Amino acid sequence: ARPKVGYFYSGENNASLKLDYMKNITVKDIMSIPVLVDEKESVYEGVTKLFLEDVGTIFVISKEYLVGVASRKDFLRGLMGGIDMHKVPISLIMTRMPNIITVSADESAIMVAMKLIEHEVDSMPVVDAIKEKDKEYLKVIGRISKTNITRLFAELKSSKEE
Amino acid sequence: ARPKVGYFYSGENNASLKLDYMKNITVKDIMSIPVLVDEKESVYEGVTKLFLEDVGTIFVISKEYLVGVASRKDFLRGLMGGIDMHKVPISLIMTRMPNIITVSADESAIMVAMKLIEHEVDSMPVVDAIKEKDKEYLKVIGRISKTNITRLFAELKSSKEE
Repeated sequence: ARPKVGYFYSGENNASLKLDYMKNITVKDIMSIPVLVDEKESVYEGVTKLFLEDVGTIFVISKEYLVGVASRKDFLRGLMGGIDMHKVPISLIMTRMPNIITVSADESAIMVAMKLIEHEVDSMPVVDAIKEKDKEYLKVIGRISKTNITRLFAELKSSKEE
Repeated sequence: ARPKVGYFYSGENNASLKLDYMKNITVKDIMSIPVLVDEKESVYEGVTKLFLEDVGTIFVISKEYLVGVASRKDFLRGLMGGIDMHKVPISLIMTRMPNIITVSADESAIMVAMKLIEHEVDSMPVVDAIKEKDKEYLKVIGRISKTNITRLFAELKSSKEE
């Protein structure tokens, strides 16, 4: 996924280069495939997708564009509240715009880590902003989470062994 | 929480020292307070604690010692399965020993990141092994998660701005 930057590890034994490597990693280098669900689908269908894809958060769309985010915590809160998960649409339990924290593909991994901590979320949609007439729509192109950041941090290991 | 190593940031502008700083961080420098629940408590009491303390995983104990781990995913699976959360004890839905991944306080943050990724868990109990006669018991002294690792990674930011 990151052909250029990966080179640093093989030959160079230079801490400065390694630190630069970590700092130059951007979202598009480490993001995962997003798991999407239509806003009209039920809570039950949402949870099923969460388990099938084994992700912590799914993104809710309407006509291709982002309208919400539903995490395990949102689902748990909904189920605890006693909703009928087969009848209630996912749009009822999701976090909706404009309260969704998003990132763009060219933001740095460090910025992502800061956003995840500051806004206390586990995962964020990676979006492309598309302007149509006066409105801006967000197209979901990826998913970035604490898992991606943790995996990146684990790469420090390889340079420790040199 | 980490008096010694923190010094590196203030004066030194040396990538090697910064990298060493990251690599020398251990679990005890960054761990959080564990949230514990007795194995006899109900699933409902467990979820309530999860929300009150706002954590993703709680640790289940019996007479002070670790017997299980229950994550949002475990609770969600239980509730989807239609259990009576007021009657069923948390021990029925938890992941139990010996399937629990643990860490000790002196392991490195990098090792933690590798364990979290390899075993696909969000959080792990930090434990002290206590030997009594022939058996070994685990006392929970902390909690370490992808959140702690993400927060640590975000610290790379400060050295970028120099």
